[in-house]
Amino acid sequence: MMVIMKKGYTQDEFDGILRRLGEIGLGGHPIVGVERTVIAVVGHIYPELADELETMPGVEDTVPISVPYKLASRETKPENTVIRIGSVEVGGTSVVVMAGPCAVESDQQVLETARAVKAAGAQILRGGAFKPRTSPYSFRGLEEEGLKYLAAAREETGLPVVTEVMSVRDVELVARYADVLQIGTRNAQNFILLEEVGRAGKPVMLKRGLASTIEDWLLAGEYILNTGNPNVMLCERGIRTFETATRNTVDINAIPLIKQTSHLPVVADPSHGTGKWSLVTPVGLAAIAAGADALIVEVHPNPDRALSDGAQSLNFDRFRMLMEQSALVAKAIGRSVGPVEAAAPA
Amino acid sequence: MMVIMKKGYTQDEFDGILRRLGEIGLGGHPIVGVERTVIAVVGHIYPELADELETMPGVEDTVPISVPYKLASRETKPENTVIRIGSVEVGGTSVVVMAGPCAVESDQQVLETARAVKAAGAQILRGGAFKPRTSPYSFRGLEEEGLKYLAAAREETGLPVVTEVMSVRDVELVARYADVLQIGTRNAQNFILLEEVGRAGKPVMLKRGLASTIEDWLLAGEYILNTGNPNVMLCERGIRTFETATRNTVDINAIPLIKQTSHLPVVADPSHGTGKWSLVTPVGLAAIAAGADALIVEVHPNPDRALSDGAQSLNFDRFRMLMEQSALVAKAIGRSVGPVEAAAPA
Amino acid sequence: MMVIMKKGYTQDEFDGILRRLGEIGLGGHPIVGVERTVIAVVGHIYPELADELETMPGVEDTVPISVPYKLASRETKPENTVIRIGSVEVGGTSVVVMAGPCAVESDQQVLETARAVKAAGAQILRGGAFKPRTSPYSFRGLEEEGLKYLAAAREETGLPVVTEVMSVRDVELVARYADVLQIGTRNAQNFILLEEVGRAGKPVMLKRGLASTIEDWLLAGEYILNTGNPNVMLCERGIRTFETATRNTVDINAIPLIKQTSHLPVVADPSHGTGKWSLVTPVGLAAIAAGADALIVEVHPNPDRALSDGAQSLNFDRFRMLMEQSALVAKAIGRSVGPVEAAAPA
Amino acid sequence: MMVIMKKGYTQDEFDGILRRLGEIGLGGHPIVGVERTVIAVVGHIYPELADELETMPGVEDTVPISVPYKLASRETKPENTVIRIGSVEVGGTSVVVMAGPCAVESDQQVLETARAVKAAGAQILRGGAFKPRTSPYSFRGLEEEGLKYLAAAREETGLPVVTEVMSVRDVELVARYADVLQIGTRNAQNFILLEEVGRAGKPVMLKRGLASTIEDWLLAGEYILNTGNPNVMLCERGIRTFETATRNTVDINAIPLIKQTSHLPVVADPSHGTGKWSLVTPVGLAAIAAGADALIVEVHPNPDRALSDGAQSLNFDRFRMLMEQSALVAKAIGRSVGPVEAAAPA
Repeated sequence: MMVIMKKGYTQDEFDGILRRLGEIGLGGHPIVGVERTVIAVVGHIYPELADELETMPGVEDTVPISVPYKLASRETKPENTVIRIGSVEVGGTSVVVMAGPCAVESDQQVLETARAVKAAGAQILRGGAFKPRTSPYSFRGLEEEGLKYLAAAREETGLPVVTEVMSVRDVELVARYADVLQIGTRNAQNFILLEEVGRAGKPVMLKRGLASTIEDWLLAGEYILNTGNPNVMLCERGIRTFETATRNTVDINAIPLIKQTSHLPVVADPSHGTGKWSLVTPVGLAAIAAGADALIVEVHPNPDRALSDGAQSLNFDRFRMLMEQSALVAKAIGRSVGPVEAAAPA
Repeated sequence: MMVIMKKGYTQDEFDGILRRLGEIGLGGHPIVGVERTVIAVVGHIYPELADELETMPGVEDTVPISVPYKLASRETKPENTVIRIGSVEVGGTSVVVMAGPCAVESDQQVLETARAVKAAGAQILRGGAFKPRTSPYSFRGLEEEGLKYLAAAREETGLPVVTEVMSVRDVELVARYADVLQIGTRNAQNFILLEEVGRAGKPVMLKRGLASTIEDWLLAGEYILNTGNPNVMLCERGIRTFETATRNTVDINAIPLIKQTSHLPVVADPSHGTGKWSLVTPVGLAAIAAGADALIVEVHPNPDRALSDGAQSLNFDRFRMLMEQSALVAKAIGRSVGPVEAAAPA
Repeated sequence: MMVIMKKGYTQDEFDGILRRLGEIGLGGHPIVGVERTVIAVVGHIYPELADELETMPGVEDTVPISVPYKLASRETKPENTVIRIGSVEVGGTSVVVMAGPCAVESDQQVLETARAVKAAGAQILRGGAFKPRTSPYSFRGLEEEGLKYLAAAREETGLPVVTEVMSVRDVELVARYADVLQIGTRNAQNFILLEEVGRAGKPVMLKRGLASTIEDWLLAGEYILNTGNPNVMLCERGIRTFETATRNTVDINAIPLIKQTSHLPVVADPSHGTGKWSLVTPVGLAAIAAGADALIVEVHPNPDRALSDGAQSLNFDRFRMLMEQSALVAKAIGRSVGPVEAAAPA
Repeated sequence: MMVIMKKGYTQDEFDGILRRLGEIGLGGHPIVGVERTVIAVVGHIYPELADELETMPGVEDTVPISVPYKLASRETKPENTVIRIGSVEVGGTSVVVMAGPCAVESDQQVLETARAVKAAGAQILRGGAFKPRTSPYSFRGLEEEGLKYLAAAREETGLPVVTEVMSVRDVELVARYADVLQIGTRNAQNFILLEEVGRAGKPVMLKRGLASTIEDWLLAGEYILNTGNPNVMLCERGIRTFETATRNTVDINAIPLIKQTSHLPVVADPSHGTGKWSLVTPVGLAAIAAGADALIVEVHPNPDRALSDGAQSLNFDRFRMLMEQSALVAKAIGRSVGPVEAAAPA
């Protein structure tokens, strides 16, 4: 950490900083520049230190040097994390597509969708049983009944299931049915839920918060990793900006940036990221080209009769076209989409 | 709701919309304009309808007409909600100041601060026992021990206590000690927590989410009101914008706008809203001038030794000055600050 | 336009709106809904009408129905605009790459870069002679001398030149040397410059403003189109959001959205859009996958000695790799990159 | 400046940085921390240095230490700048109110408004003759005819005139009529215009750009100051955020922050900052409480017939009420509003 002194600081103020650093076992190295004096702080710095020093007289500001996340950093673990979910691998060479309805509505709807997306090459089934809704008057999901429908569809199709858990009180229940636990954007900094989900031992898909910086997001992942659960995938689903022509703004830059700074797999959600079905395919392809390890896409048998987010859902035909184009784009950057053919036994 | 038709829509598409509206018991009134045809939808519209219609062929977009919150709206309840917390009233003529340390650190720290802020005119004691922290490596609060210190300080000073609850599993515990339950910015759309806190029966202070629009925020309040708990106050604590010179951007416009559109009291938090102690007083005064019913301010005996957010805490002297100036600004707009003198008995 | 009446409006207020609409030759169709009364306004609506009506008593709000841009809309002109610059076509099947240094520094630097990017498949040479710089103390470009170097490089390589014009007083000068006039992000709503550049008769590349919505941006394009110049290409170069890990946030959603709503070609600038050379290639590929008609990329012989934006420039080797990968991604979506092979003469 | 080295940098890379710094006459002081090595750069740093160093191998990032503006900084000039415009002083003890119509429409409208706002205590007349409009189809002002009406109103009322100049080609013309030249938000980073206006020698009111950070804004002011013109006032008029319930978001934090970091006077524009007349008074009062030196307010005889921004204009009665309340709030913080009574001659 660097402590930037005010112009015109007094010797007493300067000595006070060094004395405080000494008290807490840190070294302070003054550097007198042309315009500013700076004190470089060396030692094991704790998160509250910046706040403490910024209130001391003579201090203009502090500047962090180290990144605050450790376990999520590629400096800590240079090789990619590959998450195994049954026979599926997220974070490996092949791009994985997760697909299904925004909200689970009926056993028939889930099953029909699961069959269709599997036939098109999807490897994981998504579907919401607990739905966070901005308005208390919206449909909030079938809850455990919905989880059962998802499990039944897995039974038939073999597709593992990713579904959201909204509250610490439901973690145990959802973990009983799901293969991957999803943290939604509105709970992206619900730290107690993050830890509880981490401890459930299943892979976690952590959506980025609407207002989370990339650093906030990696720190949220750190909460999960810190419970001893290494299987965290980060899902870019759009951030909130001034642009209102689309529901959110997909931060495409974040995909390669995270691949460079972290070893965790990155998923992209073009359905929530755009809010318009006509943009899902081009933005999904873009995410693959930018290096995403997986896509998560909303698919519904009849988007115009969906109980949730129909406007951003693909129907089966459009999903098939997305899969075909995804395979071509993945190939262009040296990857594939979908199940890797099993090697013949030796 | 208005359904805007695409240019060049077909008669079939048009008939399809009207047929669908009929099926669900809604009326559709077409208006043929110079550039566009629009269908006005009349009847009891449900939240999912926009999404459903936007996927139908021939539809360009839909436009809502009604506000989606009902209980929070001043149209539903024209008179101000006044919340009684012991002898304190939030939302009445007098501006209430809540003050105390960001994080509870010791019984001594809380008690000393409670005495000082009471002496200066504060009416409610604030302090964090459960602390949401961006990094898992930061100090996260004393939990129940902290709640006990707050209760002890209330015992001695008579100041009611507002403190944050971070998880459904702690609602019962926190409600046992606190007079007002605070929902923090990171849980502003944790809908299950909102309902659980609503059912606890105590007044709730709902902080605005970092990325919550005013409509999102009022809808979050609606979740609490919808449990039958009418005592919701809304706390503007800064939103996330591109500006990084301050921790957040206080949305001063939101204060009078909410006072006009809702009957709920508005609190302003200039400490988190700015992140810098030197800005707390001017922004706090601004909030009063804009119509805030209360301020919540961080005060610490030694801000440079605080375990949390020292850089935004006032020391006792600066808090006294804030209180003196607040009283003058409140008077300028026909209000007062602090306890109203009891009228002499007749 | 829809006029939404306040709840509890009076008959007088209602009549007043209809009378006013009548005075200005517009029709007003009232629709009485369950919660709201709305007046649909039919006729030739002018831009100021919303503001006028919103101040009238009884009016809650107005809602526009038509898009405010006309010439830029695909509804007005369904087929793609293809812009011809010498033998290069922007907006056709082939994706065009524009490349060169951020700032022109010397004749040698420009020429060397022009040769290298041409060899790698670039079709247009970019380079800044007039540089808008946030600080008055930064290098601001070689001005006319820089234009001459660009022209000389065109002379030798045959690559047409795109370069920025910052002021109405320089339009004539820049237009004498350049093949495409660029409007930079800071002048994206400098309406007088837009018109002046439009009248110069050359193709214009209009960068999106840091805070321009897609609608603002199309309206800025409308200023140019309205001068009679049809050759406008829109360049997505990142918007300003709360994320600071990258210089800007590339709005990838905007690329397919504009292709759907407008006939104008879309260019993507991953160099300014990310501010980091290591992100330029993945984000450039993403833009192609999303449907961009062209890329504009900063290339410098020695990025670590560049006078401007070195941190976001590719060196020659990295640019060659970008071109190779671009060709593969373009092919995956049925396009090509670079010069189309001339058909053999019959 | 601090150069942060990557983990695992090589000795060669490290030596390369020091060698480069030596070549350009700067000192480099390495600090080896527990997690990171940092090189503190000492000497006269130029703006391009960060970009250059960030591309060198082994460098993770650079961190600036000094603020990039000099002339605008309070460190350079500790005492407040007070700008004299005729007998009016902006930046002194008294808060100045500038008022008038958004757009000049007729001699009668300007004169009537000038008389009304003067009678209420305004000291400067505002009015737009050149209007930047998002759409090319909106009313763009009366241009020189409008300037003449403003001058005529000054003639009669004695109020100095502030009006916008949109283009370098109009600076001389506008400066002939106006007392203060206004740079609008869309030209806030039109650097050539900033310099041209600076050289005109008249006081300049510089509006903040929609996406300008406080640092960007002070640097834009630096462009004007750097021409030798010390009379720059900074006008906070709202920034663009995700909130759409108001036209812009007034950044109230910016007002005291700039008063602390710069000596330049700060003006607040609650009309454009909110876009709604019902919010103008509370937000205007808030700006005074936060320390603004002046307000600029839109006033129109008949806001519902205004050619521009009627929805945010006050009528004469509401403006009088604003002035009365402003005087009370200003008094509460030890200031006054409006003309200071002339001291009796000795």
